[in-house]
Amino acid sequence: MITGKNYIGNQLSANGSKTFKTFNPLLNLENEWVITEASSDETDQAAKLAAQAYKTYSKVSGAKKAEFLRAIADEIEALGDDLVSVYTSESGLPAGRAQGERGRTVGQLRAFANHVEEGSWVEASIDTAQPDRQPLPKVDLRKMNIALGPVVVFGASNFPLAFSTAGGDTAAALAAGCPVIVKSHPMHAATGEMVAGAIVKAAEKTGMPNGVFSNLNSSGIEVGQQLVQHPNVKAVGFTGSIRGGRALYDLAAKREEPIPVFAEMGSVNPVVILPEALNNRAGDLAKTYAGSITLGTGQFCTNPGLILGLKSEGLSEFVNTLAEEIVKIEPSCMLHPNIAGAYETNKANALAQSGVTVLADYETEVKPNHARQVVTTVEGNTFLSNPTLHHEVFGPFSLVVQCEDEAQLETIISNLEGQLTGTVISDNDELANHANVINALQDRVGRIIFNGVPTGVEVCPSMLHGGPYPASTDSRFTAVGVDSIKRFVRPFSFQSWPDQLLPDELKNANPLEILRNINGEQTKNKI
Amino acid sequence: MITGKNYIGNQLSANGSKTFKTFNPLLNLENEWVITEASSDETDQAAKLAAQAYKTYSKVSGAKKAEFLRAIADEIEALGDDLVSVYTSESGLPAGRAQGERGRTVGQLRAFANHVEEGSWVEASIDTAQPDRQPLPKVDLRKMNIALGPVVVFGASNFPLAFSTAGGDTAAALAAGCPVIVKSHPMHAATGEMVAGAIVKAAEKTGMPNGVFSNLNSSGIEVGQQLVQHPNVKAVGFTGSIRGGRALYDLAAKREEPIPVFAEMGSVNPVVILPEALNNRAGDLAKTYAGSITLGTGQFCTNPGLILGLKSEGLSEFVNTLAEEIVKIEPSCMLHPNIAGAYETNKANALAQSGVTVLADYETEVKPNHARQVVTTVEGNTFLSNPTLHHEVFGPFSLVVQCEDEAQLETIISNLEGQLTGTVISDNDELANHANVINALQDRVGRIIFNGVPTGVEVCPSMLHGGPYPASTDSRFTAVGVDSIKRFVRPFSFQSWPDQLLPDELKNANPLEILRNINGEQTKNKI
Repeated sequence: MITGKNYIGNQLSANGSKTFKTFNPLLNLENEWVITEASSDETDQAAKLAAQAYKTYSKVSGAKKAEFLRAIADEIEALGDDLVSVYTSESGLPAGRAQGERGRTVGQLRAFANHVEEGSWVEASIDTAQPDRQPLPKVDLRKMNIALGPVVVFGASNFPLAFSTAGGDTAAALAAGCPVIVKSHPMHAATGEMVAGAIVKAAEKTGMPNGVFSNLNSSGIEVGQQLVQHPNVKAVGFTGSIRGGRALYDLAAKREEPIPVFAEMGSVNPVVILPEALNNRAGDLAKTYAGSITLGTGQFCTNPGLILGLKSEGLSEFVNTLAEEIVKIEPSCMLHPNIAGAYETNKANALAQSGVTVLADYETEVKPNHARQVVTTVEGNTFLSNPTLHHEVFGPFSLVVQCEDEAQLETIISNLEGQLTGTVISDNDELANHANVINALQDRVGRIIFNGVPTGVEVCPSMLHGGPYPASTDSRFTAVGVDSIKRFVRPFSFQSWPDQLLPDELKNANPLEILRNINGEQTKNKI
Repeated sequence: MITGKNYIGNQLSANGSKTFKTFNPLLNLENEWVITEASSDETDQAAKLAAQAYKTYSKVSGAKKAEFLRAIADEIEALGDDLVSVYTSESGLPAGRAQGERGRTVGQLRAFANHVEEGSWVEASIDTAQPDRQPLPKVDLRKMNIALGPVVVFGASNFPLAFSTAGGDTAAALAAGCPVIVKSHPMHAATGEMVAGAIVKAAEKTGMPNGVFSNLNSSGIEVGQQLVQHPNVKAVGFTGSIRGGRALYDLAAKREEPIPVFAEMGSVNPVVILPEALNNRAGDLAKTYAGSITLGTGQFCTNPGLILGLKSEGLSEFVNTLAEEIVKIEPSCMLHPNIAGAYETNKANALAQSGVTVLADYETEVKPNHARQVVTTVEGNTFLSNPTLHHEVFGPFSLVVQCEDEAQLETIISNLEGQLTGTVISDNDELANHANVINALQDRVGRIIFNGVPTGVEVCPSMLHGGPYPASTDSRFTAVGVDSIKRFVRPFSFQSWPDQLLPDELKNANPLEILRNINGEQTKNKI
């Protein structure tokens, strides 16, 4: 069933000479499938085919795109338990997680289907002509969003389904009218091939042009680099490390024609616990956070890696309880030996920093590729003066910073790099008394959370998953929710264009019955 | 009245040691005012003051920002004829143009005032909580656009008012809630100081924080470079050459925290004349285009620098009439000796290319800094093989390309760089018969025009002024019209945030009565 080949459009292809295998971290051995890397020629073919497909696919109606997206969801579901089994064998994640993530993936695809079928997302804007205006007549202008061009999507290691082959980036780009070339993540290339097969089947069933989707295997960086530099590629979606994301951003910025790179990268997701909350419920908070820190072996991008509080009895109780609670949790398997190894290295580096106290380290032996969760603590001054402590340790790791006073807390927050999320734990009305802290936090994050945990990223229109650099390379867009389609479009104006040749979205009769801005008023009316 | 000093926030300042003078191209001599360049310290001060002002200004209500923007418009109008006189002496442009451009400038400011006063522009989106949802409860999420941070605006040489100190970029950034630092254009620094004074007066009258606006003089590149690299600066607006815009883009992309640069750069604005139109009205079209090519001495960014048609009797008639008509137009003054000099150099370079035929060159002597308009023609094959001919010659210059056939026309269009506009001249129903040509043109431009001229950029919501690179560095945004505010904001999500502490735009009661997306429905309802 797994061929290990690439999809160049609808065709399976394996002309390259390099092969690799994926790894089962739970069993600590290689999987059987032999994956063939895409050759430079195949990569070029995929990009050219995408440019060709763009000519027709960018003009496909919202209704037809919806049919395609729903067919992808159906085909993924039709893969059944086979997909779950391959997923778990390539990630070490449990079957329940695979099923949940599959649900999220098909849910996203169907949400985008509804979004483009309804059609108002193109933000149609019409200013009608005023031929008699003085001193100059006003022309008829009509604007709407159109597809940007072929998009390259890099699969994420930590979400083999929801942020990979048919994940959020792919769904958003296809919904926008952009062909997609996926650079499959090498850790779950077989999972990727299965999902890619589902997309290709859906494309054929719904009559989409060949090249609307390709899937390329690679264990190194060459295929990705070639894609990002290819003149036919017009945008890039990436989820992963700061180093990887920044490298792609730099490559894209140096092109003759620079293109946008939407990289969702590192984040320590600071959590601020205000004094009254610490005083009133330090123990309960510690229990909640022990769960959030270790959820999915700490491999969520919104994992709470930094907890900030004012020195107090409450904070002492919090750190002590957190230490007790976190060792009760059974260590779990990381995605891959490389990730488990990087966790151990980064953790050791953090622990070696002067002034860092280990609160809880899981001392007993763990199975191969399993992560020992760690909670540490440090004084505010030490944290401020050591940028190493500001960096993410990807995995079940968290650092509690004990601040001298509110001013130091504000300074620490203001000096953080950009983050996906910031969380404030607060009791009663104390939130209103800490406006400076809240404002500083808001300035550093993309989403601010009241009395919750940052893990758990709801897929809905009001979600913002992104944030100031380096949480993402472009804080002006979300990577989750239907608004993520905005990354892959550009507005386009028609001036004095004949009505019958306008896209349906801009025709006088409004045949799609979408919401439009007509002469400054939002309406579904005809003209 | 003109001090030649910089505005560092509300304070006039001239600590630098370098000075320069502006130039009156009509009189061909220097203006009297001595302009002092901003020092490195002053530049740093302006950026720090802007970051400080951002903390409060980003939270100022739409109503108060509207008051500020309207006060700027009023103060500019209050400068009266003095502004017109300084403008003309620094640009060589006639008083009527100054008045028209002033009208456009205050019109833009007032349009943005209305836009932010109404308030729906923040794209508020609310998904209410579902505590009983299975398998997991749904949290309350509310998203809206917030100000990005301090913005640097580079004044444009060709629009001393509408694309400079208080021009479109400044108006959009201030409307968004971003403080602005203008790097004044050295060719019209005195005009810039007058307008800056009007902005500072308006800021003081309406109680805006010091640092919400600064104006820095510089005849070189150092001040601009320092600003683009300053960590407190979060976005850049620029209108000018590809070389200048790309240099700023590259500088911004290399920052530790990369920031967006919205550079509106070169464009030859291709015009395609379809066969029937050529056959039916070549002479009239030539007269119209002689006017468009020479409008404002060809110094508009939408100047039609490239005209494409199929070889035919009609095309011959068009080029001959265009040649006759264009020499009838009196040569006019360019903005500055440097620009007039660059025009002569670039024109000479274009004329020296093999296969280029000069159709009309204004042979008689012209006054200093005045431009001789030129129309040239070339065969399709020659054009395709010589990229030099694809580049803009800024000034009253146009090149007519005579294509062998429709396939060659399509190839030529597909090989053009990105453009602000594309124009199609068509008779009756022939537009529908040239879908490939139209699709190719749409793919290369930001705005497509039917039976008109590209010059004339209406300020309205449906305008798209921008386009694929190098027309602009980011085709996903417009530089003209109220939607240009979107360049300077980022979406931000509040999760489970207490209602009374939410911004008014997201409160249950909808006190601003704005249009919001609530659980997927556009409505002005309360929750």
